[in-house]
Amino acid sequence: MEEKVLIFGHKNPDTDTICSSLVKEILDKKNGESDTKAVRLGNLNKETQYVLKYLGMEAPELIKKVEEGQKVILVDHNEFGQSVEGIEKAKILSVTDHHRIANFETAEPLYYNAKPYGCTSTILFEEFKQKGLEIEKKEAVLMASAIISDTLLLKSPTTTKQDRKALEELAKIAKIEVNQYGMEMLKAGTNLEDFTAKELVNLDAKSLEKDEIKFVIAQVNTVSIQEVLKRQEELETAMNEEIVKKGLHIFVLAITDILDSNTEIMVLGEKSEIVEKAFSVNLENNCAFLEGVVSRKKQLLPNIDKTIGNEELA
Amino acid sequence: MEEKVLIFGHKNPDTDTICSSLVKEILDKKNGESDTKAVRLGNLNKETQYVLKYLGMEAPELIKKVEEGQKVILVDHNEFGQSVEGIEKAKILSVTDHHRIANFETAEPLYYNAKPYGCTSTILFEEFKQKGLEIEKKEAVLMASAIISDTLLLKSPTTTKQDRKALEELAKIAKIEVNQYGMEMLKAGTNLEDFTAKELVNLDAKSLEKDEIKFVIAQVNTVSIQEVLKRQEELETAMNEEIVKKGLHIFVLAITDILDSNTEIMVLGEKSEIVEKAFSVNLENNCAFLEGVVSRKKQLLPNIDKTIGNEELA
Repeated sequence: MEEKVLIFGHKNPDTDTICSSLVKEILDKKNGESDTKAVRLGNLNKETQYVLKYLGMEAPELIKKVEEGQKVILVDHNEFGQSVEGIEKAKILSVTDHHRIANFETAEPLYYNAKPYGCTSTILFEEFKQKGLEIEKKEAVLMASAIISDTLLLKSPTTTKQDRKALEELAKIAKIEVNQYGMEMLKAGTNLEDFTAKELVNLDAKSLEKDEIKFVIAQVNTVSIQEVLKRQEELETAMNEEIVKKGLHIFVLAITDILDSNTEIMVLGEKSEIVEKAFSVNLENNCAFLEGVVSRKKQLLPNIDKTIGNEELA
Repeated sequence: MEEKVLIFGHKNPDTDTICSSLVKEILDKKNGESDTKAVRLGNLNKETQYVLKYLGMEAPELIKKVEEGQKVILVDHNEFGQSVEGIEKAKILSVTDHHRIANFETAEPLYYNAKPYGCTSTILFEEFKQKGLEIEKKEAVLMASAIISDTLLLKSPTTTKQDRKALEELAKIAKIEVNQYGMEMLKAGTNLEDFTAKELVNLDAKSLEKDEIKFVIAQVNTVSIQEVLKRQEELETAMNEEIVKKGLHIFVLAITDILDSNTEIMVLGEKSEIVEKAFSVNLENNCAFLEGVVSRKKQLLPNIDKTIGNEELA
């Protein structure tokens, strides 16, 4: 078993998950706890690669599973389905997160700091403040990048005044011009060319379950929805493979235009009609356009979740 | 639907649950949020009655259930089985708690502030500090009483240095002599004479579930275990009624001597042997003496929980 306490975010790591893991390790060290270590559960996406390259930092070590009794700290997730293999038997010391709580349990009391903000790093930013710890340039860039990523440059409806305040203050310490740095970072993440279809549908995919209906909502950011739709056939093949492999009832691929803040959804699975009901749309050629929708957490998931709940009552 | 946001602790309320609800309302008001209101889910025990009488305060309003969509704030619990009827369809805005997390989920992100302290009020005490809000005498007495109750005057193994620090500071503001006030308050709670057996086994009972094994751990505080054991026959009748009514596999009644810090357990139910294994004891006449055991959360529950987990593997 790893002696250090392992800090990690969710599978299919995004920029908030990686940056918040690294920041949590820095925060713990500054707070006198030096036995924690950030790790990751999957490959870095190109947006996150851009951030680490900007800072000249190495990616955290990749882990595949944890042993029974391993001490862990979760950031940016809590649902076991999104966590590391073996999480059920690990000892979870703390969670810092901005998602709903579900499919999560512990045998013992723990630290749990959740706030309904746009980004986990905004919660960590407030922890630095509360504990009176200095924020230096490296962690400022990490937290600013996470906020820019999760809020799509403060344009997502998940954005809160706390995220705006944190980003403003962090940008000064990080010495970055938010819009310029942010757009370069986001665009780096939309370069999807050298991903296979299988990689694309798994890049940022969340596995969810409600009332025994298993579904995945995957999301890719782009500057051209049409470019992504050119690959519809191979994307659908990859989605169907996931449906069979994981016994899913629904697979939603959200293709989000980060410039215009709209999303095209591609939906497969035997319960696809739940998604049609959730957004009052008809799928045509398995697709539908959702104007003004950009957030999985605040827009896609709650609507689908609520519709499943109502189906059960019917 | 109640327009105000309702704040409440667990069913079978104890002193921490009632005091923390009242303190959370005060904290919110001082923080500029005046639309919250403390309520309770059951009758006050005699210990809590002592505290409110000391302060000349009324008990919060009793509620039995909440409507769909009711906005609520939970303190001192999270498991739905310990919460109000209708909690599944309520909108949980925040949780402040010091228990493990289990059988809990939300559809949307929320505030969740958990710390593995001995008492919920210690977490609220730290919130006053972090937000720079003044603590006045009334809330100081409420928080001090909650800490004294949950930690059995700092003698329970659940006691942390944060509880000690909070109690020390709160006692000054509350102008109480901790040992004298605390012992009077605890003794007030051990006056069990005018409770029926049915009331006794429900007074501070937690419903739990693990791997489909349903169990209850009820606890009564006393200054004489022998006095309580005199009522064994009627207590067992009442426990058996609960077992049938709730389909329980185990009912544990923990009779805790608050002076000597020991516990006698009385155990019924078809899976009683799990409790024997959990504490390496043989039940004699359905009872066993557990030396040095006083905490349900830190001693009774984790051992039973772990033993059930191991049974499942066997």
